[in-house]
Amino acid sequence: MDDLGVEVLLLSTGPDLPWLTGYEATPLERLTVLVLGRGGEPVLVVPELEAPRVGDIEDRVPGLTVRPWAETDDPVALVGELGRGARRVAVGDHTWARFVLALQDALPGAAFVPSSTVTAGLRAVKDPAEVDALRAAARAVDAVVVEMRDRPFAGRTEHEVHRELVERMLARGHQEANFAIVASGENGASPHHDPGSRRIGDGDVVVCDFGGRRDLYCSDVTRVYVVGEPPAEVADTWAVLVDAQEAAVRAATVGTPGETVDAAARGVIEAAGHGEHFVHRTGHGIGVEAHEEPYLVSGNTAPIEAGNAFSVEPGIYLPGRFGLRLEDIVVATPSGPERLNSAPRDLAVVG
Amino acid sequence: MDDLGVEVLLLSTGPDLPWLTGYEATPLERLTVLVLGRGGEPVLVVPELEAPRVGDIEDRVPGLTVRPWAETDDPVALVGELGRGARRVAVGDHTWARFVLALQDALPGAAFVPSSTVTAGLRAVKDPAEVDALRAAARAVDAVVVEMRDRPFAGRTEHEVHRELVERMLARGHQEANFAIVASGENGASPHHDPGSRRIGDGDVVVCDFGGRRDLYCSDVTRVYVVGEPPAEVADTWAVLVDAQEAAVRAATVGTPGETVDAAARGVIEAAGHGEHFVHRTGHGIGVEAHEEPYLVSGNTAPIEAGNAFSVEPGIYLPGRFGLRLEDIVVATPSGPERLNSAPRDLAVVG
Repeated sequence: MDDLGVEVLLLSTGPDLPWLTGYEATPLERLTVLVLGRGGEPVLVVPELEAPRVGDIEDRVPGLTVRPWAETDDPVALVGELGRGARRVAVGDHTWARFVLALQDALPGAAFVPSSTVTAGLRAVKDPAEVDALRAAARAVDAVVVEMRDRPFAGRTEHEVHRELVERMLARGHQEANFAIVASGENGASPHHDPGSRRIGDGDVVVCDFGGRRDLYCSDVTRVYVVGEPPAEVADTWAVLVDAQEAAVRAATVGTPGETVDAAARGVIEAAGHGEHFVHRTGHGIGVEAHEEPYLVSGNTAPIEAGNAFSVEPGIYLPGRFGLRLEDIVVATPSGPERLNSAPRDLAVVG
Repeated sequence: MDDLGVEVLLLSTGPDLPWLTGYEATPLERLTVLVLGRGGEPVLVVPELEAPRVGDIEDRVPGLTVRPWAETDDPVALVGELGRGARRVAVGDHTWARFVLALQDALPGAAFVPSSTVTAGLRAVKDPAEVDALRAAARAVDAVVVEMRDRPFAGRTEHEVHRELVERMLARGHQEANFAIVASGENGASPHHDPGSRRIGDGDVVVCDFGGRRDLYCSDVTRVYVVGEPPAEVADTWAVLVDAQEAAVRAATVGTPGETVDAAARGVIEAAGHGEHFVHRTGHGIGVEAHEEPYLVSGNTAPIEAGNAFSVEPGIYLPGRFGLRLEDIVVATPSGPERLNSAPRDLAVVG
């Protein structure tokens, strides 16, 4: 904050608040804000009816005071008083627009910047406990990946398989399922397909990309299941993707720019003639947020640091036909990239 | 927009976009924005990899154009070009702060207001199809309320019951479970309690408050289950709450200010000596958003309109002991308030 000239940090909904304090704001119309002034004691402004929910935060976070507000109080005015005089305020990246605009009115002399200017670089470097949490989350979804290899796909809708993935993530110790993409047949060519009523049939290629949160830290894994033996074209394209992912993982060493890792995967896919079918970046950072810095994307020249954790997930999408994507979470360590996911990386043949 | 002098509406994540178009933005770091200029044709700025996900929106929304952006494009600059010259911009209430701040930089001459200044009044008045959607969602959670009366509570953790509520909402046709509070024993005194590892036991009073989304519209219901016959104090306090809720529902006629409905419930509870134990407003509007206008709260002098839909949910919370809350969704009609929930309103005795 000193380096950036930020005098007050205001954190509401989103990952910065739980990352700092373990407490997560309820994403509703009643405002929760942690007001953290440079040199001052932090104050957690919280709706009165949620005050019992914050638990022992005053014991866990040194110097923190909880300041409940009643239904007829104005929490924005309260934050305005706490932040009075600040010229530069960092506000949580996910804070709702209605609160940002109200807070700007309540602090008219302040320039607002996103809190990620303060927190993103810190959050991107995971300490050993954070890596352990990511590893535990990765192992949990790996177990789901393996369980699904013995499950029937044919005859079920995408939505039914989606629900099974969600339930298995929760059963494996995730507190939340963030998403579970099930994209079968031609739907696989839509990277962020919403699972729907399409019934999976013989010969279908099914992309399953799912993740959630376990003890605050996120998981994210993608594997592909094929109903019956895959045709040669699918198997050959998958082999390209496996090579591309391996090349990117190997490239993801400390000091390498994010865009170089992206180029490593892209090069393999372009050489196989599928460059135009790889329509997204190679990966994103992961931590308390499903997508965070660093991004493995063309234009990101920042070097990877030890402790960075990110997905490596190249894909090949053939519109109207099928899609393929392979994703693991990788941590950059001084001794090289370490995959946190260890589920089999072959095309899984299912019924 | 004309009345408010708003020249451009910018809708991203949050309920306004699906309410207007049926399409919901992915709440991630890749920006989606509907740019709707006064008199102009709407443009949906969407990440290229999500372009297949928008489906036939160009057919469904007259004049709408989809404008995909590639991974290395700058979507904020694109929105800035589309909105150039606007002096007053309404931005979706839930838009992330990082995008609001970037859009303010990209449109330096514009004053920003929340989109709810344009949409909240329109969204608060439900048409018959919207009331039908709310009714269908209410019936689905009513079915869950009834199913739970035959289920065992004793010996299970709050979290286990929470998961069952989530699964039953999905099984009853909800696409999303928004929340499922299970607050047992002394935890019941925390209105927004996070279900945890507390094991429910004999004599426990258990508040279950749950809801989700079914075909875009939300459900929200609260009932109380008691393990074994409730002691007289619990039964007597519940009777007060039933009277308070009934008084508030009866008061919720067209033309009555929201605060008067709140006062109706509060009056009954105060007369019974529990005024200090009713620590929140009486209700909130509901629609495509779980909480929206109108709010039944002291200070809201706006009269209820025909088509308003809202929760009526007084509660009585005895710190360290137990809590009680009773909630139904009500629609204001010209012929009087209509409850959309019809599940039994007695204390459910369970095993």
